Amino acid sequence: MPTIRIAIDASGGDYAPSEIVAGAIDGARQHSIELILVGRSEQIDEQLLKHDTKDLAIEIVDAPETIEMQEDPAQAVRKKTNASIVVGCELVRDHRAEAIISMGHTGAGMIAGLFTFGRLPGIDRPAGIVPYLGFKDTFMIDVGANTEVQPKNLLQFAIMGSLYVERVMGIPNPKVGLLSNGSEPNKGNAIGKQAYPLLAAAKLNFVGNVEGHGVTHGEANVIVSDGFAGNIALKLGEGLIDEVLNQVEHAAVPIDDKLRGVLAKLRERHDYARIGAAPILGINGLLFIGHGRSKAPAVVSAIGLAVKSIESKLLEAIVEGLKGS
Amino acid sequence: MPTIRIAIDASGGDYAPSEIVAGAIDGARQHSIELILVGRSEQIDEQLLKHDTKDLAIEIVDAPETIEMQEDPAQAVRKKTNASIVVGCELVRDHRAEAIISMGHTGAGMIAGLFTFGRLPGIDRPAGIVPYLGFKDTFMIDVGANTEVQPKNLLQFAIMGSLYVERVMGIPNPKVGLLSNGSEPNKGNAIGKQAYPLLAAAKLNFVGNVEGHGVTHGEANVIVSDGFAGNIALKLGEGLIDEVLNQVEHAAVPIDDKLRGVLAKLRERHDYARIGAAPILGINGLLFIGHGRSKAPAVVSAIGLAVKSIESKLLEAIVEGLKGS
Repeated sequence: MPTIRIAIDASGGDYAPSEIVAGAIDGARQHSIELILVGRSEQIDEQLLKHDTKDLAIEIVDAPETIEMQEDPAQAVRKKTNASIVVGCELVRDHRAEAIISMGHTGAGMIAGLFTFGRLPGIDRPAGIVPYLGFKDTFMIDVGANTEVQPKNLLQFAIMGSLYVERVMGIPNPKVGLLSNGSEPNKGNAIGKQAYPLLAAAKLNFVGNVEGHGVTHGEANVIVSDGFAGNIALKLGEGLIDEVLNQVEHAAVPIDDKLRGVLAKLRERHDYARIGAAPILGINGLLFIGHGRSKAPAVVSAIGLAVKSIESKLLEAIVEGLKGS
Repeated sequence: MPTIRIAIDASGGDYAPSEIVAGAIDGARQHSIELILVGRSEQIDEQLLKHDTKDLAIEIVDAPETIEMQEDPAQAVRKKTNASIVVGCELVRDHRAEAIISMGHTGAGMIAGLFTFGRLPGIDRPAGIVPYLGFKDTFMIDVGANTEVQPKNLLQFAIMGSLYVERVMGIPNPKVGLLSNGSEPNKGNAIGKQAYPLLAAAKLNFVGNVEGHGVTHGEANVIVSDGFAGNIALKLGEGLIDEVLNQVEHAAVPIDDKLRGVLAKLRERHDYARIGAAPILGINGLLFIGHGRSKAPAVVSAIGLAVKSIESKLLEAIVEGLKGS
């Protein structure tokens, strides 16, 4: 099998380029892949000098523009044709790399991916799937892109999410649940109630509606939601975990070394920025977008996800999976 | 001023009648009110024998039926005309009591209130407002009744919620926020985007959209939401707090007395069953519904909320507040 080649957006993220390049190098070595680093080439050169990379195959592709957080993503993607995320996606489209990873602007990444790759056959709307804040074996799809959905979108999210979690995360026959306000099939908003029978009839391990507390209690591996409620659930969870751990810390002042260690471990476990990156599912190419606060270990982990997605032929599996639906 | 008289559903809740009657007696004494206990009269008599009630004015109204959790609330309310929650609402409608408090079936309570009292002028949909899981000065409306809303419903929730939090919870000029997936005015689902300018134009201290993490970070005192996302946010919060505190406990095994105390205190602070009860706003009568797990202190606290609502003329304020909208 020829060596896998992955493109990394070296200019995207709060800690770019240093942490991104460092993580890319570690990841390339750990996963035996070839790298294309996309970004400001002089900056990348400068970073590479800090590392021993003689054993690695690293190509640099100059892409001097970046898309800033405050820019309108659709406009910026169209205008800045030399932005690292745009050039990175084109490398995948042109078969020079098999996946692109970016810790930059999420919206710009999604739009660059959609514009460059188009959608997979059978998909109306792409969606992001994320591990739910470090809660073991729990993933949520969608978490922001699609504030309005139709029942068929939720069905497509469910099929894509289930295949990703099974093939890439290694959870056999994943439980799929529909985020709702009650566990009975007749609970939910209008769209959810229409989606329920579609999910129940699909080739999925559908466990029915999952209420808020079911998310953290492991009721499903894939929590299917519109991007509005999913985004609220994700950010609310981030805020709550942070707040509750802070409350423990404050209530226990002066805290001893043992509790300090426990809290540090839990903060790390639930830190969204450490998770690696999330794939945008439903576009016709492999794109992984991580948290802006990602450091080198998140890049290593993202490379692992990309490699598994490539090796398990995730995109082909999704196209096949959608045929029956 | 004549003594306030409040009706209590002595048959509703997991710990009825013993904890309900005990809490009613404590609350009546603390708040100097008269009581009507509604439920199975022989059970109430039996409970009253356990207490010294010579100084209190307590009336018993026999209502031998109860509505069970698994019953369809609308059908049950129509059929069981002698259910304690139905009879209790009628006492308020007939001016024999100024408020009714129940720890029973939430859905049945809402429907009994709506059928018996009707809606306040200017209100299209009643909604429940709850303190958000013990996070100081943070309340959420709606949390379940209205899975589908129109922009005007969100505006009405905002006005009712703001008046309740100001008059009954004593928070001056409360900050009102719209639960959303982004802080900018153009973020949100379709209904939220239409509601935003309505809230901005109303006589409210509107702080704009509030994202998930803003809920626990005190960005607003009144979080306005449809009942679908609000219910998910409430139950997700319950699950997460529980889960995170359990994780601290497990990671710290063997835990010492100090940490055991800290965790117990935080569990208590965030325990939804201890907060008393939530009013159903928008119906033409004062109805408070508490958690099924409520014990005596929650009943005492609910009586306090009812007294403040009566004394501050909450319903009149809502009718007046809606006129300008």
